[in-house]
Amino acid sequence: MSRTSLLQDLLSSIASRTGFLSDPRSRRLTLAETAKLCHDLVSARGEPSGVRIATQILVSFRQMDEDEADGFFALLADEFGPPAGRLRKAAEAYAATPTAETLSALQHAAEPPRQELFRRLNLAAGGTAELVRLRERLLPRLKRDPARLEAVDEDLRHLFQSWFNRGFLVLKRIDWDTPASVLEKIIRYEAVHTIGNWDELRQRLAPGDRRCFAFFHPSIPDDPLIFVEVALTGETPASITEVLDADRLVRPAAGMTTAVFYSISNCHRGLAGISFGSFLIKQVAEDLKADLPGLKTFVTLSPVPGFQSWLQSLGAKPVPALDAAEAKALAIVAETGWAADPARVEAARPGLLALGARYLLKAKRPDGQPRDPVARFHLGNGALLNRIMHLADPSARGLAQSAGLMVNYLYDLPRLEQHHEAYAAERQVAASRAVTALLSSRFNDNPNREPA
Amino acid sequence: MSRTSLLQDLLSSIASRTGFLSDPRSRRLTLAETAKLCHDLVSARGEPSGVRIATQILVSFRQMDEDEADGFFALLADEFGPPAGRLRKAAEAYAATPTAETLSALQHAAEPPRQELFRRLNLAAGGTAELVRLRERLLPRLKRDPARLEAVDEDLRHLFQSWFNRGFLVLKRIDWDTPASVLEKIIRYEAVHTIGNWDELRQRLAPGDRRCFAFFHPSIPDDPLIFVEVALTGETPASITEVLDADRLVRPAAGMTTAVFYSISNCHRGLAGISFGSFLIKQVAEDLKADLPGLKTFVTLSPVPGFQSWLQSLGAKPVPALDAAEAKALAIVAETGWAADPARVEAARPGLLALGARYLLKAKRPDGQPRDPVARFHLGNGALLNRIMHLADPSARGLAQSAGLMVNYLYDLPRLEQHHEAYAAERQVAASRAVTALLSSRFNDNPNREPA
Amino acid sequence: MSRTSLLQDLLSSIASRTGFLSDPRSRRLTLAETAKLCHDLVSARGEPSGVRIATQILVSFRQMDEDEADGFFALLADEFGPPAGRLRKAAEAYAATPTAETLSALQHAAEPPRQELFRRLNLAAGGTAELVRLRERLLPRLKRDPARLEAVDEDLRHLFQSWFNRGFLVLKRIDWDTPASVLEKIIRYEAVHTIGNWDELRQRLAPGDRRCFAFFHPSIPDDPLIFVEVALTGETPASITEVLDADRLVRPAAGMTTAVFYSISNCHRGLAGISFGSFLIKQVAEDLKADLPGLKTFVTLSPVPGFQSWLQSLGAKPVPALDAAEAKALAIVAETGWAADPARVEAARPGLLALGARYLLKAKRPDGQPRDPVARFHLGNGALLNRIMHLADPSARGLAQSAGLMVNYLYDLPRLEQHHEAYAAERQVAASRAVTALLSSRFNDNPNREPA
Amino acid sequence: MSRTSLLQDLLSSIASRTGFLSDPRSRRLTLAETAKLCHDLVSARGEPSGVRIATQILVSFRQMDEDEADGFFALLADEFGPPAGRLRKAAEAYAATPTAETLSALQHAAEPPRQELFRRLNLAAGGTAELVRLRERLLPRLKRDPARLEAVDEDLRHLFQSWFNRGFLVLKRIDWDTPASVLEKIIRYEAVHTIGNWDELRQRLAPGDRRCFAFFHPSIPDDPLIFVEVALTGETPASITEVLDADRLVRPAAGMTTAVFYSISNCHRGLAGISFGSFLIKQVAEDLKADLPGLKTFVTLSPVPGFQSWLQSLGAKPVPALDAAEAKALAIVAETGWAADPARVEAARPGLLALGARYLLKAKRPDGQPRDPVARFHLGNGALLNRIMHLADPSARGLAQSAGLMVNYLYDLPRLEQHHEAYAAERQVAASRAVTALLSSRFNDNPNREPA
Repeated sequence: MSRTSLLQDLLSSIASRTGFLSDPRSRRLTLAETAKLCHDLVSARGEPSGVRIATQILVSFRQMDEDEADGFFALLADEFGPPAGRLRKAAEAYAATPTAETLSALQHAAEPPRQELFRRLNLAAGGTAELVRLRERLLPRLKRDPARLEAVDEDLRHLFQSWFNRGFLVLKRIDWDTPASVLEKIIRYEAVHTIGNWDELRQRLAPGDRRCFAFFHPSIPDDPLIFVEVALTGETPASITEVLDADRLVRPAAGMTTAVFYSISNCHRGLAGISFGSFLIKQVAEDLKADLPGLKTFVTLSPVPGFQSWLQSLGAKPVPALDAAEAKALAIVAETGWAADPARVEAARPGLLALGARYLLKAKRPDGQPRDPVARFHLGNGALLNRIMHLADPSARGLAQSAGLMVNYLYDLPRLEQHHEAYAAERQVAASRAVTALLSSRFNDNPNREPA
Repeated sequence: MSRTSLLQDLLSSIASRTGFLSDPRSRRLTLAETAKLCHDLVSARGEPSGVRIATQILVSFRQMDEDEADGFFALLADEFGPPAGRLRKAAEAYAATPTAETLSALQHAAEPPRQELFRRLNLAAGGTAELVRLRERLLPRLKRDPARLEAVDEDLRHLFQSWFNRGFLVLKRIDWDTPASVLEKIIRYEAVHTIGNWDELRQRLAPGDRRCFAFFHPSIPDDPLIFVEVALTGETPASITEVLDADRLVRPAAGMTTAVFYSISNCHRGLAGISFGSFLIKQVAEDLKADLPGLKTFVTLSPVPGFQSWLQSLGAKPVPALDAAEAKALAIVAETGWAADPARVEAARPGLLALGARYLLKAKRPDGQPRDPVARFHLGNGALLNRIMHLADPSARGLAQSAGLMVNYLYDLPRLEQHHEAYAAERQVAASRAVTALLSSRFNDNPNREPA
Repeated sequence: MSRTSLLQDLLSSIASRTGFLSDPRSRRLTLAETAKLCHDLVSARGEPSGVRIATQILVSFRQMDEDEADGFFALLADEFGPPAGRLRKAAEAYAATPTAETLSALQHAAEPPRQELFRRLNLAAGGTAELVRLRERLLPRLKRDPARLEAVDEDLRHLFQSWFNRGFLVLKRIDWDTPASVLEKIIRYEAVHTIGNWDELRQRLAPGDRRCFAFFHPSIPDDPLIFVEVALTGETPASITEVLDADRLVRPAAGMTTAVFYSISNCHRGLAGISFGSFLIKQVAEDLKADLPGLKTFVTLSPVPGFQSWLQSLGAKPVPALDAAEAKALAIVAETGWAADPARVEAARPGLLALGARYLLKAKRPDGQPRDPVARFHLGNGALLNRIMHLADPSARGLAQSAGLMVNYLYDLPRLEQHHEAYAAERQVAASRAVTALLSSRFNDNPNREPA
Repeated sequence: MSRTSLLQDLLSSIASRTGFLSDPRSRRLTLAETAKLCHDLVSARGEPSGVRIATQILVSFRQMDEDEADGFFALLADEFGPPAGRLRKAAEAYAATPTAETLSALQHAAEPPRQELFRRLNLAAGGTAELVRLRERLLPRLKRDPARLEAVDEDLRHLFQSWFNRGFLVLKRIDWDTPASVLEKIIRYEAVHTIGNWDELRQRLAPGDRRCFAFFHPSIPDDPLIFVEVALTGETPASITEVLDADRLVRPAAGMTTAVFYSISNCHRGLAGISFGSFLIKQVAEDLKADLPGLKTFVTLSPVPGFQSWLQSLGAKPVPALDAAEAKALAIVAETGWAADPARVEAARPGLLALGARYLLKAKRPDGQPRDPVARFHLGNGALLNRIMHLADPSARGLAQSAGLMVNYLYDLPRLEQHHEAYAAERQVAASRAVTALLSSRFNDNPNREPA
């Protein structure tokens, strides 16, 4: 408790001011001073000073402007890599005579001191969260200068894979009794269906037919890593509008049969590539099932974010030909205002559903996985592509990305492993008959990948 | 909560029975089956099955007898090391052309899949604690077959250094309001001054002038990693008997000036070499200071566990000559029953204290550090050797190991860093004048190491 | 937990709907049915059915419209009073021969069965909160029909005095980590300086120089009874504007010397007359002092809500004559827009302060206590009238009620008892010299009450 | 938290010492001083001093020896009763003209100031628990001097009925994770089947087929009011030995069908006559049912504490004649060592069971309730007398009180109300056919009460 507050206090006092800091602990250090502290931190041994130095470095990093941060990352890249000479010798020795000794020496020489630096920075109270923010500042730089910074990122990712291991994460329910300090982050982090204010947040959390769960790391207790919002319903809803309707009749949770995962948000860019989503959904489904034995169906209500860009790419390609319904749909969704015109909505329906099925089942990446990122995520978890719904997300974003389509991925708990393995091994996409039936007949005999 | 209980339930049901297990999940697997599961676990990708497989492996390991465990560790050593061919090529490539790419390839090839195996075993609820127990079973084997098992241990140590980073540990007070499930472990783990039963435990925890603090890991919430017992007193006590006296007058903590750290116990052999002790004492001292501003002195009451064996080694060596008092003391403590005879106790006092000072200040290991392990620990933390006390631990163990001597190491918070650095850099031992004055004059001019 | 939710669920489901309730437990009962249940509840003995019946009655009461509630309160008044015949006989018996037996019989006969009814209604989960709401609905009726309903209210007050005894209340800090379900009530209940939305709430709770504390009853864990907002400052602020300024420099709490209690709000009309405010301020002051030893001054920043109406009454009375400054001030504050005109503000200052002092020190009720309710509250707690500040609350309400004046009442902890006793026994008002000096000289010699 | 500790600290420091108390707050007061404080406490109004005075009185009471306590209770009886003169006038006024005003005046005059004194004593931190202890010291005196002290006890009972209302009690599970400070009280309070030490306690709490629940009052958080121990079994056990067998096979709770309430203990003599037991069992049964839906049967395993004394009274009475089996059993259980002799055990079985049934079904008190207190408790709760078991408690106490018999009372949740009402209204005892069949035929036609 008190440990967390130290750094937090320092950092928030920095964050909240622009002027002079009377606290001498937080005088801004130069990059050279910070570099010196980093070297001290890695070299010290008994470490009575470790906590203090780590705190100073992280406070200094927080205060750096973008130029200084460039310098700091360059420092991490250039001065904390493996010792080149020693590593080369160790590589030669091992290549010459691979024994337990030469192996061990090679492994030690190959581990960058940067990893130990990061581990020791974690001594500072609140250090884990700061290291996540450090990677958040690294990532845009990584795109600009991958050759230099890739190794730094690799060390951070390696550490985070170990630290944010699912075995260490804590699943917590988020509801209207959750501290406001956490809830304000839910508002901020919601990435799928925006939460405009506290009243809307209350609508998502307080009614008896709503659930929200998040993974937390024990060292970052007031800041979720990922969260999922769930609606408990009597049947699978046909649109997100229906789910978010504030005027719906709220019925007792005990009578509900279906849990709809309608929004999943990762909270920290600094944890990009560290995956917890699959664990979250599975765990939440199991916990809900234990709590509400009446629940029989666990299903997502998901966007199809790559659909529109794929549709647009279709025009450019001769193959495969569109049938009449598809061509018509393609034309309609290119018109403005179609979604508000019932006649055009209905006219587009058959073709758009067929195109949706084709996109999700047939459009593949070179590695054989579906082109759609949301599909990859859920199919990789072992879910089944269960239903495609026309005009299920009429929001501006929903039309722009998904042409209004939404998808139910079904989490059939007893079959998750089987589906997952078929997908992992053979890229086999589990899909319901209702979905495969949407494919125009040309595709039904030919389960192979089309050129995407 | 529910996650922890799953594995715990399985394991405790195994632990509590010897016969038939009706639960099919816990049928005993063969070593070959377990090996297969380990390979599956490392290779699986999306991992809906990761939690289940990890649980099965850990349950299986728990059930293994010693022969089977031999086989399991051999498996870890032989089948989960780095891929020899690929690593050799990567080493050659790097040695030939050290670039970012060849470095990254080398690092990947050098990391044993065993590390990923251990990380994934941690997916199981309660997995962290099981991995600590796994290392506990490994350590005796490591002595017998270091060539084969050293690499396995190194991977576990590497992981534990990262996972049990002080930044992740939680300091908690242990008192009479602590759950019994934790307290029974305090009884079991107390390594310095045995706690015979719950009444004795109550004596250590409940009185207002007692404190006890432990580090916990968030994933092992009911099992401390290390704990320290503290007595709050008006002055530094002259013996452990005085500290543990159940009939003392218990005075209000607010009036006390001195915190005596009289027992520090590591709880898990499986965490040997992963050090938290220095952080614990420093943190506890700071927290006590904040809570009870009247506290001025933070001091240990420590054994001198290597003293007797050093005394015995003296007889065998000609140099340096003992003076008369020392020779007399050496003779007395070799007699049985001396400690119960006031006359002999007093006769031994000057020589024994001189020998104690000499042992602690002059007897060194080849690396220049003191021969006494407790001295190394506290001096390494930046403490100062403050006082040596004659017949301060008259227990059987105290006489057998320390000839009754006990030592106060003083934790002078503002000076810890300075002492630590002098010790780390130059092996300089911080000692009070009272202690150095005990040395017979021959040594006072010569601060150098004597042959130990 | 689960007990609370039962009634809450029922009640909130009622609250959220207007139509048909499928749950048979919550079919609306007639008044006659509810009356029958009340009689059953009082008469039952072993009470396996008590919880159920109590819940039904409270649910029924919640659903009553105003006419039905009239009937229900009439029922409580008429059918649950003491048994007239038996009581009369007991009174006669006691009057004739006062013994322990006749006394006990009289006491039993005098206690209305209504008290037992209320105690048993409390068996329902959430019953305590419902009984508070019941009194909230009673109070407006009490004014209309005191003869009939006074006894009902007396029984509720008697019960609440016992149940909401300070010994049962729990003091909790309210901050930005408090559950949103509690915080939304803080927004709703703030009675002194309105909190417009969640951002303003955050401004009151999150900064390091703010504190908020509330009393809770253990049976109503998510709903505060009373709360106080505190600003930690370097000196006593001169206006509420300064305190609420969102752009102030937030300084560390540890360096602050003054705790300013700038808002105290009672949360439940149903608890009118059950006083906890004096305990709250004293307890909060003591806790803050223990936590932040730098705090030396505990002071309120309070409105003077009766000042304007007293000013207006002055015009109507010949005695005592206003002096020139007072008359001028009286004229100015009757003008619109004066508070925005620096010249008039300054012109009014001396007279208005003199009038303020006169109002607070001289204007009394028939019972000898000050006319101002806020003054009565703080003086009754043992506080001292420390300072009167001109134009310290320029809000519309501040001008309308207090002509912009605000007052510091000083809570000088060691002297609270002494001041309280002088006030309780002799209506002596503790006031600083600065305040008494404001009185125009006519009053200084004459400490007696003026005609109010 | 901190409030509780103040008085607790004072009191425990008193409890742990006999000599001089340096703390001036705890100088022993004379009875006259304490009496003065009591009068002050009742008369004070704004009460900044209430907490302090209440604490002083309670500390003083704790320190009183038995003679002083006699004096204190006399004081409570004599000086804090209703004002005789005023009450007499009020009684006469009401008897003459019973109006709302005379009624209210009468009620006020009839309420002893003692009640307000007790309520204000509760202002002291920890006051509630001290008042319970106060009544504990009162009760033995009450027997000796009922005329004087009955009124004091009545006031305390009246208050406790209100304060310990089931609506305020908190049900908590007691298990091996419960704080030791609570568990030591479970050991101390267990009244039915003694718990010898912490290992035996662990046997009662830790295994997966055991449960224990207690009611707590929020103001006495570390001290249970009443607790019940439960065994989860596959069928109703035939003896307490079987239930307490430490070597039984512990099976998973989820598979169990039966919850056996085998021990219920009230914890505080000071709460005698304030009943929570019926609520406890019913609530625990409902909670267990919700948690473990496999549970179908909720049954006690209860002693028959009045059986032996009733057996002995039989010899003295001619009517009704014993039949041969009964006479034989009566003779056998009068012999020493019969319970260890299988032949005699079997020989006694039919007669003893018949006598048991006769005792439980036919032996009545003048008010028509069963003579057996445990039967009265469970039948009053609406339970059904389900089975009588021969030699089910072979402990010394079991033989001495119950001749080894034990009884299952069945808590059939849907029928509790119906049974309760039949019992409350008509003293009708719900019994299974198995039990009524044990009655010798003479009784079966004649359901009426026999002379007991």
